[in-house]
Amino acid sequence: MVHVIKIGGNIIDDAIKLDDFLNRFAKLDGPKILIHGGGKLATNLAKELNIEQQIIDGRRVTDAETLKITAMVYAGLVNKTIVAKLQSKSSNAIGLSGVDGNIIQSVKRNHPTIDYGWVGDVESVNADFLQSLIDNGIVPVISPITHDGKGNLLNTNADTIATEVAMALSETNDVNLRFCFEKLGVLTNPELDGSWLRILDKNEYEWLKDQQIISKGMLPKLENAFRASESKVTKVEICHADYATEQGESFIGTQII
Amino acid sequence: MVHVIKIGGNIIDDAIKLDDFLNRFAKLDGPKILIHGGGKLATNLAKELNIEQQIIDGRRVTDAETLKITAMVYAGLVNKTIVAKLQSKSSNAIGLSGVDGNIIQSVKRNHPTIDYGWVGDVESVNADFLQSLIDNGIVPVISPITHDGKGNLLNTNADTIATEVAMALSETNDVNLRFCFEKLGVLTNPELDGSWLRILDKNEYEWLKDQQIISKGMLPKLENAFRASESKVTKVEICHADYATEQGESFIGTQII
Repeated sequence: MVHVIKIGGNIIDDAIKLDDFLNRFAKLDGPKILIHGGGKLATNLAKELNIEQQIIDGRRVTDAETLKITAMVYAGLVNKTIVAKLQSKSSNAIGLSGVDGNIIQSVKRNHPTIDYGWVGDVESVNADFLQSLIDNGIVPVISPITHDGKGNLLNTNADTIATEVAMALSETNDVNLRFCFEKLGVLTNPELDGSWLRILDKNEYEWLKDQQIISKGMLPKLENAFRASESKVTKVEICHADYATEQGESFIGTQII
Repeated sequence: MVHVIKIGGNIIDDAIKLDDFLNRFAKLDGPKILIHGGGKLATNLAKELNIEQQIIDGRRVTDAETLKITAMVYAGLVNKTIVAKLQSKSSNAIGLSGVDGNIIQSVKRNHPTIDYGWVGDVESVNADFLQSLIDNGIVPVISPITHDGKGNLLNTNADTIATEVAMALSETNDVNLRFCFEKLGVLTNPELDGSWLRILDKNEYEWLKDQQIISKGMLPKLENAFRASESKVTKVEICHADYATEQGESFIGTQII
């Protein structure tokens, strides 16, 4: 079983939580891949540099200056900080962006009315190269920067990267894809931390969406999760980072079916 | 022959020069490794963020904030920009810092009187992993960020990294190491661009140093070059970036013997 685990900003922004997660991730047996987002560091750096962040319909526009910041923070500082920590925990990690070894090629988003700037939608994943790394006991740590094959970097959604990587590897592996965040799973009542669903199927998801019980920010994550669950990916789960590496009965989270 | 080429700030800071160099580098036949410095981007970013740069005896001190900047600029922006361009030129490049795959482990510099901060002196090179990459036609592009094996990043001199990588690979390969900069080679008269030496041996070097003909900034580069030339590295050269990929008679530069 290949473990594909995506961690988000809430862990990355907190050095103690990150270290705690990486201790557990380093000990997880078998082939594994970590995909990380960027956390608040990029937003803070943009603020310090007086680069205005434009948000359209809840989505950040990546202008040329913002792209540089994401490349610096995601592919540089965050990625290398994680890899250095994993190396110190006897995990032979390698930090990669989608650019490296052409792991993830994207196309610049072409939206009919909104110019999202340097944002990439994934086109292809180099599963062979990732496979050769994990077959050699190397642990890829992937930052959400991709490229268009024409020499341009593209800022890409980390949940989407996790989904595409899991799907590409599922052609020849059993894959367990986990999206980790700050809740115990998909909540039926956003006010109640204990209201997470053990399982969630598409019908129930549509109903929760119609009732506006699932918050807007969760929708892209869940769309990715259902896309993966409808593919050859063996198991797709949404969970708290504390349970990212738990197996069997000690696991808590929402399984997407 | 494995080509190990180091490029410096003057190329990285100039998008046209960089693109021109990468066009030629992409076409260079055979196994090759590119090592890059950081250019003025890191200094400029530090200035914008009001992070004071402390210089002691002509060497920059890497405090915790400066280390973050070097990781962002070198391992993030510069490294991924170069790799994306090489990928677009049909060169299967992979961007790596010394942290990734434990390629270069360093030790924090312990100076009797000066605290250089988070600066690393190279301890070991993972030649096997680099060999496996170049054997598979992959082109490593290495940024000068290393780690101490205890989870800390270290800012490391790019000339030293080029030297150590060349020396490690020379155990099982013929290696041509080239340090590229903005001059045609080692000049006997710093005022005369045409005064470059075709060859330079240790005796002549010591004499030029005594006469203070070789400038202070060139000394660490030349110390590295002589260290490599006294090892199993087949050929060590110092040249202008325009000649970085030239072979045989069309090559111009100083060979270190």
